[in-house]
Amino acid sequence: MNEKPQDESSPWPLEKVVAELRQVRHEWRERQGREPDLGTRELPAHRQIHEVIDALCGILFPMRLGPSDLKKESEDYFVGHQLGHALNILAAQVRLELGCQQPRLTHSLQVQKANDIVRRFASTLPELRRQLDQDVIAAYRGDPAATSVDEVLLCYPGLLAIMHHRIANVFYSDGLRIIARIIAEKAHAATGIDIHPGATIGQHFFIDHGTGVVIGETAVIGERVRLYQAVTLGAVRFDEDEEGALTKGEPRHPIVEDDVVIYAGATILGRITIGQGAVIGGNVWLTRSVPPGSRITQAVLRQSIDPAG
Amino acid sequence: MNEKPQDESSPWPLEKVVAELRQVRHEWRERQGREPDLGTRELPAHRQIHEVIDALCGILFPMRLGPSDLKKESEDYFVGHQLGHALNILAAQVRLELGCQQPRLTHSLQVQKANDIVRRFASTLPELRRQLDQDVIAAYRGDPAATSVDEVLLCYPGLLAIMHHRIANVFYSDGLRIIARIIAEKAHAATGIDIHPGATIGQHFFIDHGTGVVIGETAVIGERVRLYQAVTLGAVRFDEDEEGALTKGEPRHPIVEDDVVIYAGATILGRITIGQGAVIGGNVWLTRSVPPGSRITQAVLRQSIDPAG
Amino acid sequence: MNEKPQDESSPWPLEKVVAELRQVRHEWRERQGREPDLGTRELPAHRQIHEVIDALCGILFPMRLGPSDLKKESEDYFVGHQLGHALNILAAQVRLELGCQQPRLTHSLQVQKANDIVRRFASTLPELRRQLDQDVIAAYRGDPAATSVDEVLLCYPGLLAIMHHRIANVFYSDGLRIIARIIAEKAHAATGIDIHPGATIGQHFFIDHGTGVVIGETAVIGERVRLYQAVTLGAVRFDEDEEGALTKGEPRHPIVEDDVVIYAGATILGRITIGQGAVIGGNVWLTRSVPPGSRITQAVLRQSIDPAG
Amino acid sequence: MNEKPQDESSPWPLEKVVAELRQVRHEWRERQGREPDLGTRELPAHRQIHEVIDALCGILFPMRLGPSDLKKESEDYFVGHQLGHALNILAAQVRLELGCQQPRLTHSLQVQKANDIVRRFASTLPELRRQLDQDVIAAYRGDPAATSVDEVLLCYPGLLAIMHHRIANVFYSDGLRIIARIIAEKAHAATGIDIHPGATIGQHFFIDHGTGVVIGETAVIGERVRLYQAVTLGAVRFDEDEEGALTKGEPRHPIVEDDVVIYAGATILGRITIGQGAVIGGNVWLTRSVPPGSRITQAVLRQSIDPAG
Amino acid sequence: MNEKPQDESSPWPLEKVVAELRQVRHEWRERQGREPDLGTRELPAHRQIHEVIDALCGILFPMRLGPSDLKKESEDYFVGHQLGHALNILAAQVRLELGCQQPRLTHSLQVQKANDIVRRFASTLPELRRQLDQDVIAAYRGDPAATSVDEVLLCYPGLLAIMHHRIANVFYSDGLRIIARIIAEKAHAATGIDIHPGATIGQHFFIDHGTGVVIGETAVIGERVRLYQAVTLGAVRFDEDEEGALTKGEPRHPIVEDDVVIYAGATILGRITIGQGAVIGGNVWLTRSVPPGSRITQAVLRQSIDPAG
Amino acid sequence: MNEKPQDESSPWPLEKVVAELRQVRHEWRERQGREPDLGTRELPAHRQIHEVIDALCGILFPMRLGPSDLKKESEDYFVGHQLGHALNILAAQVRLELGCQQPRLTHSLQVQKANDIVRRFASTLPELRRQLDQDVIAAYRGDPAATSVDEVLLCYPGLLAIMHHRIANVFYSDGLRIIARIIAEKAHAATGIDIHPGATIGQHFFIDHGTGVVIGETAVIGERVRLYQAVTLGAVRFDEDEEGALTKGEPRHPIVEDDVVIYAGATILGRITIGQGAVIGGNVWLTRSVPPGSRITQAVLRQSIDPAG
Repeated sequence: MNEKPQDESSPWPLEKVVAELRQVRHEWRERQGREPDLGTRELPAHRQIHEVIDALCGILFPMRLGPSDLKKESEDYFVGHQLGHALNILAAQVRLELGCQQPRLTHSLQVQKANDIVRRFASTLPELRRQLDQDVIAAYRGDPAATSVDEVLLCYPGLLAIMHHRIANVFYSDGLRIIARIIAEKAHAATGIDIHPGATIGQHFFIDHGTGVVIGETAVIGERVRLYQAVTLGAVRFDEDEEGALTKGEPRHPIVEDDVVIYAGATILGRITIGQGAVIGGNVWLTRSVPPGSRITQAVLRQSIDPAG
Repeated sequence: MNEKPQDESSPWPLEKVVAELRQVRHEWRERQGREPDLGTRELPAHRQIHEVIDALCGILFPMRLGPSDLKKESEDYFVGHQLGHALNILAAQVRLELGCQQPRLTHSLQVQKANDIVRRFASTLPELRRQLDQDVIAAYRGDPAATSVDEVLLCYPGLLAIMHHRIANVFYSDGLRIIARIIAEKAHAATGIDIHPGATIGQHFFIDHGTGVVIGETAVIGERVRLYQAVTLGAVRFDEDEEGALTKGEPRHPIVEDDVVIYAGATILGRITIGQGAVIGGNVWLTRSVPPGSRITQAVLRQSIDPAG
Repeated sequence: MNEKPQDESSPWPLEKVVAELRQVRHEWRERQGREPDLGTRELPAHRQIHEVIDALCGILFPMRLGPSDLKKESEDYFVGHQLGHALNILAAQVRLELGCQQPRLTHSLQVQKANDIVRRFASTLPELRRQLDQDVIAAYRGDPAATSVDEVLLCYPGLLAIMHHRIANVFYSDGLRIIARIIAEKAHAATGIDIHPGATIGQHFFIDHGTGVVIGETAVIGERVRLYQAVTLGAVRFDEDEEGALTKGEPRHPIVEDDVVIYAGATILGRITIGQGAVIGGNVWLTRSVPPGSRITQAVLRQSIDPAG
Repeated sequence: MNEKPQDESSPWPLEKVVAELRQVRHEWRERQGREPDLGTRELPAHRQIHEVIDALCGILFPMRLGPSDLKKESEDYFVGHQLGHALNILAAQVRLELGCQQPRLTHSLQVQKANDIVRRFASTLPELRRQLDQDVIAAYRGDPAATSVDEVLLCYPGLLAIMHHRIANVFYSDGLRIIARIIAEKAHAATGIDIHPGATIGQHFFIDHGTGVVIGETAVIGERVRLYQAVTLGAVRFDEDEEGALTKGEPRHPIVEDDVVIYAGATILGRITIGQGAVIGGNVWLTRSVPPGSRITQAVLRQSIDPAG
Repeated sequence: MNEKPQDESSPWPLEKVVAELRQVRHEWRERQGREPDLGTRELPAHRQIHEVIDALCGILFPMRLGPSDLKKESEDYFVGHQLGHALNILAAQVRLELGCQQPRLTHSLQVQKANDIVRRFASTLPELRRQLDQDVIAAYRGDPAATSVDEVLLCYPGLLAIMHHRIANVFYSDGLRIIARIIAEKAHAATGIDIHPGATIGQHFFIDHGTGVVIGETAVIGERVRLYQAVTLGAVRFDEDEEGALTKGEPRHPIVEDDVVIYAGATILGRITIGQGAVIGGNVWLTRSVPPGSRITQAVLRQSIDPAG
Repeated sequence: MNEKPQDESSPWPLEKVVAELRQVRHEWRERQGREPDLGTRELPAHRQIHEVIDALCGILFPMRLGPSDLKKESEDYFVGHQLGHALNILAAQVRLELGCQQPRLTHSLQVQKANDIVRRFASTLPELRRQLDQDVIAAYRGDPAATSVDEVLLCYPGLLAIMHHRIANVFYSDGLRIIARIIAEKAHAATGIDIHPGATIGQHFFIDHGTGVVIGETAVIGERVRLYQAVTLGAVRFDEDEEGALTKGEPRHPIVEDDVVIYAGATILGRITIGQGAVIGGNVWLTRSVPPGSRITQAVLRQSIDPAG
């Protein structure tokens, strides 16, 4: 484009900015060792994954999260049609991530592996729905403000979060980290609940309110556990800070056994165990394991109360 | 469909998954005692309620939250047209929820009751706008970073939250819990502020930043109250935990009197009273009433400070 | 419209509500001293600003945040085309805010000033991309769960937040507060991270998880700083409460020097300084400066532990 | 709205034009004897009917006119889901037209009658597809330019026209003239072929090119008939012109027997019969019956040919 | 962009084609004497004009061509809101065409002139509706197949064509030829009826079927005229063919007086007069005036009829 | 799905209709000898081809048929970006048609062949634009009603038709008949002008009004030819009628030499030659060749004129 005369009246320095941006991209790609001849986007895309997830919500709960004009007599047709559509898109995205992980695999082997993964995923959907039904029950029983299971399904961000997590976790288990994270972040953006797709979560799980909850990659949560907003199941980080590069993938988040309740704002850090049936009070800060059946409450702080103002 | 031969080359086991999903739905509906012949979706739908709420924001503040090309001379036409449209959609949704609550009511009685509710709601809109104008003023006065009322109206999530709440609360008062919750969760998703539609909130209310705020169903908030991010006005739950089933609907959240300020991260639990003009410091944990004019600050914790690292 | 007969069968009292809403708007505008003849919307609009920002994300990272079918050979064309489009929309919005600030400026002077601002903004884009590349690296290094820079770019809300902030800050510096706030609130809604566009933030910045983070208008953050969820860099407010009107614009938020790490839930208030390399523990409450290299941890609270439940 | 002051700077005389338009509507409705209290639109709507027809095209030919990413294994699910959706919309539109025809019928009787009609219509779809398959074959055989049946199905406006006609004719037979006409006009707008929904058309019908074809309400067309562009099967009108009001509904268009071919531009008027196997030449003007097997060609006009220019 | 290396693997020669296309555009603009510094599109745009026209159809017939969920009680609000919106878009398009005609006019004078034109246009809308009501009546009376005025309004392409023409003609009269033609071609594309916006057409006008009708720029049509498909009111061209450049703008199309009927396919050419009440038969070719009350029919051609085939 | 109980209250017989439609499809596919295991749609799709064509119109005339907010300084970026996008879609569609023609070709050979075809097509675009510029000039010169070349480009259906034809013809020449026909029918639907993509058309071509024009597959048209509405360049069919199966692909349409003018409604049939510079009058019916320079006019028919009515 060297013969193009710079238009005097042009308000924006488009050519200059475009060239400089190309230069910065070039530098980044060189530093990252990216192949110079890479012609296409090799990564899964938000829009497609989001479309798949929205379709799956409708597939799992057609009369509640499907199209508002769906009739019960059309349920199976809707489910079958949406499922075929969603799995096709998904297979293409899975292949993209596999191709990114194993660029030397032939295209047709990538397709075959992707189809295998998606076929297995499809087979888990009925069990997934069964688990989510239990999560709905757990929410209904766990919140005095809930007046019906329908209210839970339509209005509880905690349910939305666990629905996304149970789907994301399947892909994480298959090594598809980026797809899994895109799903998890979709829920995080909508609910403020940040569950890493690697976390292991048992049946009858309920998070109330939820904003600010963080559950780490290697956390393990038992059955019938209940969490409130702003609970953190995180890693202790002081030790790792000195090391320079961080060790990735080690178990570093808590194990929470069955029937535990953790109230709002509690921070539980490190590979510790919260014993079965324990109740952790609001704002408690815990870095050591506690035995089954414990009741942990924050000591009442001496508060400066000046009744006269 | 029994004569359909299973396609050998079909990548997805659609028929099997569709059948299993139908089975799980069937089991759920049986356990929930749902009518077997229920042909239609009987619940309000997110998309419609969201459309109504977006329209109402434009109706209440046409030149700020209406279409960006609206001219002042068209304001009344825009308001009237949008209002008719929004109320029609709303009436259909209200009827759905009434039909769900009272399935034995005839269709035409449901329509009549729904129209009565929507008509009353329409009549409250001018007063609602008046209240929101006071909330805008409260935000402008309460935040040193605010430089104009327009900035507040366009950019403050706290205002968005209270706008949704004041609308949701009207429907909650009419017993339309699902519509009310869908509205409340729309604000929760957009702002991280979780106000149960049952909460009673006075004039000149302001929440700054807001992420993580939780206000419970039976909370009562007076006039000119100011909250910061991550404040909880919640229920104490330990006592109820032993009971098995939870008692629903009891007053269990705080009463906050006029002119109270509650700083970020404060947790206030149970049916206690924060007296008029009290100031609650950040991160304070309160489960007992405090008299008017109190200043409550968290005792400075002994912190382990190691200046040398 | 006085001759129009009230339709008896009309379900909604449209005319009455429209008239009352007009009256409330009129009262508000009178109280606010708004010009009676103001015919047009003088403020920037959410939809347009959001469109510009979404376009800018694609312009800055075309193969990651651009259209999913983009090929590398078309990158420059895509960038140039989107850039021209985005800057045109932006210039119109900037002119609107300038016109609102300086209503006596002639239209053509407003256009000229707006074009100058947008032209300068366009020139900063390559440097902005360079900074964001460093932020990506910082996130990749700072999180043991991150397995590639692509995962960071596609999935980390902290990166989305800093991308919006670095853009918003350019407009804040040019005095365009409303455009800057709309950009900041777009990120706040999507991530739960609330960074005031006025905050000054250095290179290699990383926020993990992020929900509930609040960074105030006059905060100053150095290089290589790392924050976790629910960290507040706020202002102390007790003193100002007595004054009636708040002083606006004063430096009132912390200075965080290079290489500081602040763990989840820490609250740091007032114009204090966190010295270089300091590490602030989770949930710490700080209102006094700490020297470089400090390790601040919350004293372990005496917790009431009842192992028998 | 009488208290609203006329804005001096308002560019458009909205209030005046709105009032005058209301007045004209009022006069029209009075002249037409429309009920003054009529609150709702009682007529079928273009958008809904068009949506139904587009869906039906996909239902009848899923792999050719359905969504481009449809796979054969999903065909039945797609067909079932689309069918349920389309029939629901259709039933509502049928009820509207019935309500308009028989305003005294109760709402639930209207619903019941509409459902009966739509149920019958659904049952005709397989036969309809069978007929259209024959029309495809007829087009393929009748046009030397056609190279495959797929080309016919995807590209021939004549096929689109007969597909719409065969659907429209079902509704016409049930007395739903407006729905039938909306369908017919959809095809007319897309193809320039104007077939009145009342026309009776046999199997293996083919129109080539088609623009300008007009087939009247009472025309009767046999099997294996072929028409070219700009053929008119119309009514003779001179007689009726004297009468004042026209007699509506009388048989007044031609009968075209089996195996007739009518070339481009031929005009055939009145209740005459074109005998089996006749061939009508281009531009022929016919107002009298012709026996089976006839060959009608326009006499070669004496043309003024001036070879020298 | 001279430093960009040509990507070997790039499938498309983008850079080469872009450069060559630029060169062809450059040559065209030079030949056309276009200003080299012309920075913006100076012409009205299809999309905007089409949006205005669709809005105007709804404004003129709100309960028939407006949104399908419009209720009568909202009619005025809908009309007022749509009108303001449509006139704003229209004013911008009118200014573009004025700017193109008179590039030396200042921007604000262009705006002022455009506003004057649009204001006048708005004032004609009630009269326009009144005329269209008469056209509806004319269609209902003129077609034996029409069973209600609603069927005419919803389904008759002839009505759509005259509605567009009556609007287009207002702009033609104001010298806005491009806007007028875009409107006329919108109708032409939808109906196959090509009425030049310059044609003068009286009250009670009806075109049946319509495909192929052509009405020239200087045609003059009286009251209660009825046309059928493929009628041409054109110009004789042989004389002008010798001249080289054509004389533009001269009266060259027929005058059709009141109460004339012209049947399908008739071709009427040149500045001749069809006297009041004349009836012109199908396919007649006329280049000479005929007196009032004439009946013109094509002589029955000697047709070669071979009954034996 | 055999265990699904038939819902008594179900309004539609979905299962029955779905099964019957499957049966009809099955019969059709068997009769057509379609492969039973065919899993995917093997044909080009309307939506994608239409998107490509709309993009190409903008690529060829960016400031006239591109986005209405395009600025001249962004032209090249727009062209390059759209071109890359359009060619990618096109390549996929070309591969589909190749795969349909040569199902035994490997996927990667299909891709390679498709890319070759699309690359060649891209290279013809500059020449194509040059030809279209000449067509614009021809229209401007040929119509006394045209007042600028811009009016021609924006408003003349004849130009739209030739633009589509020149594109379609490239694909026809490469044997891609279905893609070519979809493009041709897009123009036919929008303009009523039906040009078979196989027709050969020279420079400076102009069709005025255009509705009803039909140009056959093997027609050959020279330079500077001008046609009016309803002109047919067709085939004589009587001879072929007796044969049973039609011979496909033979030259059977007219040759029209340079500088010919053909007026409205003329019908020219068979492989005859219209000599250079000939003028064919309106409604003339021609089945024999005419020498260069001829003037052919229809003999004035004896018309039955009854001046008294």
